[in-house]
Amino acid sequence: MTVTTPAGFRAAGVAAGLKSSGAPDIAVVVNDGPDTGVAGVFTSNRVKAAPVAWSEQVLHGGVVRAVVLNSGGANACTGPAGFQDTHATAEHAAAALTAQHPDQPFGAGEVAICSTGLIGERLPMDKLLPGVSAAIGGLTVDGGDAAAEAIMTTDTRPKTTVISGAGWTVGGMAKGAGMLAPAMATMLCVLTTDAVADPQTLDAALRAATRVTFDRIDSDGCMSTNDTVLLLASGAAGVTPSAAELTAAVTAACHDLAQQLIADAEGATKQIAIEVVGAADEDDAVEVGRSVARNNLVKTALFGNDPNWGRILAAVGTTAAEFEPDAVDVAVNGIWVCRGGAAAEDRSKVDLTGRDVTIRIDLHAGVTEATVWTNDLSHAYVHENSAYST
Amino acid sequence: MTVTTPAGFRAAGVAAGLKSSGAPDIAVVVNDGPDTGVAGVFTSNRVKAAPVAWSEQVLHGGVVRAVVLNSGGANACTGPAGFQDTHATAEHAAAALTAQHPDQPFGAGEVAICSTGLIGERLPMDKLLPGVSAAIGGLTVDGGDAAAEAIMTTDTRPKTTVISGAGWTVGGMAKGAGMLAPAMATMLCVLTTDAVADPQTLDAALRAATRVTFDRIDSDGCMSTNDTVLLLASGAAGVTPSAAELTAAVTAACHDLAQQLIADAEGATKQIAIEVVGAADEDDAVEVGRSVARNNLVKTALFGNDPNWGRILAAVGTTAAEFEPDAVDVAVNGIWVCRGGAAAEDRSKVDLTGRDVTIRIDLHAGVTEATVWTNDLSHAYVHENSAYST
Repeated sequence: MTVTTPAGFRAAGVAAGLKSSGAPDIAVVVNDGPDTGVAGVFTSNRVKAAPVAWSEQVLHGGVVRAVVLNSGGANACTGPAGFQDTHATAEHAAAALTAQHPDQPFGAGEVAICSTGLIGERLPMDKLLPGVSAAIGGLTVDGGDAAAEAIMTTDTRPKTTVISGAGWTVGGMAKGAGMLAPAMATMLCVLTTDAVADPQTLDAALRAATRVTFDRIDSDGCMSTNDTVLLLASGAAGVTPSAAELTAAVTAACHDLAQQLIADAEGATKQIAIEVVGAADEDDAVEVGRSVARNNLVKTALFGNDPNWGRILAAVGTTAAEFEPDAVDVAVNGIWVCRGGAAAEDRSKVDLTGRDVTIRIDLHAGVTEATVWTNDLSHAYVHENSAYST
Repeated sequence: MTVTTPAGFRAAGVAAGLKSSGAPDIAVVVNDGPDTGVAGVFTSNRVKAAPVAWSEQVLHGGVVRAVVLNSGGANACTGPAGFQDTHATAEHAAAALTAQHPDQPFGAGEVAICSTGLIGERLPMDKLLPGVSAAIGGLTVDGGDAAAEAIMTTDTRPKTTVISGAGWTVGGMAKGAGMLAPAMATMLCVLTTDAVADPQTLDAALRAATRVTFDRIDSDGCMSTNDTVLLLASGAAGVTPSAAELTAAVTAACHDLAQQLIADAEGATKQIAIEVVGAADEDDAVEVGRSVARNNLVKTALFGNDPNWGRILAAVGTTAAEFEPDAVDVAVNGIWVCRGGAAAEDRSKVDLTGRDVTIRIDLHAGVTEATVWTNDLSHAYVHENSAYST
């Protein structure tokens, strides 16, 4: 049930024909309150999709009562006309929701919009608006799974999560399998909670959570124009958790969804954790982890079951992190193949036959650590991304 | 004849058994003078191979009379023992050269060393030192082609160049097909000239040349631990070109070699020029060009003959360059598929059937331009790099 597991939320997912496959492509999530608190983080890509520009504006208003999400088109690089399309979608949804509950009229400025799919093409509004109407007509308190399915693009499976607190719950859904290197944001993700929390607490919890989860997955080094994560709070549980409790639950939900994203990344045959330890500070640890995560030679080597630690060191050497090249240790799946920047244990001892790979890099420059998660670079990634839009 | 086309140089290439294939793997280039001027630039990777550390030290001495190059092993991440191996190689070469010309004794500090191949393994010195002796025994004024062949790794063909001045010449050879994203340096490259030039002029010419040639190719975003380019001047032509003439010739030689590197990059099926125009300054233009060159989604799209300009804009959006997202124009092979950040001419007009691709990005933020060259990301790249070391 995911986003509808917490009390106070309804959702739906329908097929509107945006995808030529006929698969579901429009989702709506509604917060029935009593609270309407919201927090959000968005892509730091300077080329932002129209729905990102719109939703950033909506969040400034401080109230989000509904989120409309579509797959089958990113509505990015579509100019002023694309922004008008997003605006029209919000107006349309607000009118349909108002018709459903005339006693609680919705404004377009309370409707966040998320889109995902091919960049550079207008959305077919003649299909999208009827689809939004249909989804709103089908909203139920059991609609979370249908919504999660409707936001998939190259994902092979929906990603959902539920984290339970004491008398309250966090639910969530996410999509994303490529162009997957969020920075200060994530792919499309909607989190819900029935906890009572003020906007400052929601915002702090969400930023703390994304910083160590979505911001630390890097599938292909390519940052999207559409990354959005929203956290909606209904207050329907009537329970006010502490800020620490809320942050822990939101972080657990984000971690679960982020791991599902990496596990389903385009073409991936390996799920790789890069644990950087002994760093002078967190920025250094993340920079080193990301440089390894983005290195095509490391990623192709792991696809080939090759514990090629020399490529790992070459990647570490491109960073500005504090370390001495002749002090770096590297372990692959527990075998310390490199000590002091040179060969140590026999690389043939490394077992890479499984799907999970752990690379541990000790910089010997401090006591801070951070983990970045990525996947390998395979033939299937090349195939999928050389044939996606045409 | 390449590096031996300019007067005053001898070279040789031999097979010493470093490569299991039995292909040539040791090259020696000797400057017989009368001058011994040299300039060099090296990888900015902080994890530097032993031969890079050695050669940087040699260049501080200001005199290089011989260069010993080997393929079949990078001698990187090999610790103090690896540095001793490099030192021993220089001592061995100096002794052999002194035995050949007892009237002109060589010092080890006049011998630069370059290595290329797998990172993290010691070189087999029992094979390497006899190979160096054999190469020195076989030095001839016609040996340039044999030397160029002996430094190949995954290169499918040797890369050589000759640029003629008025009564003087620049020759060169280079290798490199992967881990090919030089920064302030290049892959292994030796340039020779019989022009008369002082070390300051040589250094200025070489840095000006590499900045707009080797530093602007980016095959796979992966910076090597061993990048080295050396320029040796014999003065044997007795002609002193102007600094501008020398710089132009060295630049032409570097450009020719850099294009040969990109053309032979691992798995490449497309040779891609990313022309960034309308930039506020050169740093912006190069940053934008490199961000597109390193974007796996752009590179796989081009492998699939897909003019996916949305991915290009998403890559541009990750940079700190000065531009407005709704002012950017993009042409692919002459078709302006994006104007003002949105779709313009029909993408189906773009012909991507040929090997050469030109992406032109107009930032409309100034009058500066720069070109970065790259190649596509293909199945063959994944195959080659998932099977290289094991």
